[in-house]
Amino acid sequence: MAQVSDSVSKVIEEFAKLPGIGRKSAERLAYHILRVPKTEALGLADAIRNVRENVHYCSSCFNLAEAELCSICADPRRDRTQLCVVEQPRDLMALEQAGVFRGLYHVLLGRIAPLDGIGPDQLTLQQLVQRVRQGEFQEIVMATNPTVEGDGTALHISNLLAEFPVSMTRLARGITTGSILEYTNKEILADALAGRQRL
Amino acid sequence: MAQVSDSVSKVIEEFAKLPGIGRKSAERLAYHILRVPKTEALGLADAIRNVRENVHYCSSCFNLAEAELCSICADPRRDRTQLCVVEQPRDLMALEQAGVFRGLYHVLLGRIAPLDGIGPDQLTLQQLVQRVRQGEFQEIVMATNPTVEGDGTALHISNLLAEFPVSMTRLARGITTGSILEYTNKEILADALAGRQRL
Repeated sequence: MAQVSDSVSKVIEEFAKLPGIGRKSAERLAYHILRVPKTEALGLADAIRNVRENVHYCSSCFNLAEAELCSICADPRRDRTQLCVVEQPRDLMALEQAGVFRGLYHVLLGRIAPLDGIGPDQLTLQQLVQRVRQGEFQEIVMATNPTVEGDGTALHISNLLAEFPVSMTRLARGITTGSILEYTNKEILADALAGRQRL
Repeated sequence: MAQVSDSVSKVIEEFAKLPGIGRKSAERLAYHILRVPKTEALGLADAIRNVRENVHYCSSCFNLAEAELCSICADPRRDRTQLCVVEQPRDLMALEQAGVFRGLYHVLLGRIAPLDGIGPDQLTLQQLVQRVRQGEFQEIVMATNPTVEGDGTALHISNLLAEFPVSMTRLARGITTGSILEYTNKEILADALAGRQRL
């Protein structure tokens, strides 16, 4: 790469640091940046700078926010008796895009993962307990990921909140709408059978 | 997406404009930007801005350059009797990375593609003829892509340069080293047979 301009090498190197972007893709992106109208290229640069400088975590729920409170916590129309606990802002976004939950959220910013060296102290659990203590929540919906670590985190939280008079629920497990029974696996079928509902 | 911060929506939208980056990947990249150290995020933004503001085409060969001439044209150690004609700067970079050519290049910035409305006038052909007229080239190596359009472009150029006392060559076609004969196709085998070499 001795013959390529330094700026080009640099932008390839920076693109290659992104997740899922290999060396070849990074080169392709760099050439794209050089080919598109200048305003478009600078639009991307500004958007990256802007999001990193303006966005931080909501002081209440740890969702992404540009003000002190995120747009959900600040919205007076949200149901303040329901709290949905998620691992990451992107999980919150998936739920919001589905438009099926009208309560508030609490973002843990991770899950308990001993193998990765992530313990309860690195999550926003203290703040969660504080919110449940002070809030008017009647139901806490655990929406951690349906993985060993997500389930473990949910269990830990349900123990942590056992002293409060709130009902604890978790997202239903079962077969997914639109899937083909034949191609699901044992765990999914076991969940679906265990959680079967009256017709 | 009503609930996501404007800066986040904006950066997702900008990432999604990149080739090969869909909506989901763009979201993943945006969250990556929010998670990495600030210097790394701003490093990417700066690299994009920088490459778009500082890099232009070499006034001689139309390679990417940060000065008037690109680093290859400016390098006194390059062999000025050989000229390799490529479609795009990324083709030049592939050849440079292989390190097998020590002459100069000429970048066409495209190929003749009537179906896409790209005619000879939109390429850097005038400048190529000018360079061949004034230069001391003894050999022109056509390294356009081995496609119908690339071959057509090479043919057009060989007609254009027929009047000059230079030898015109093109990259060899045949089976690729490391490939499996059984899985190559008719065109490749025909090329390989037609270009067979004495052992």
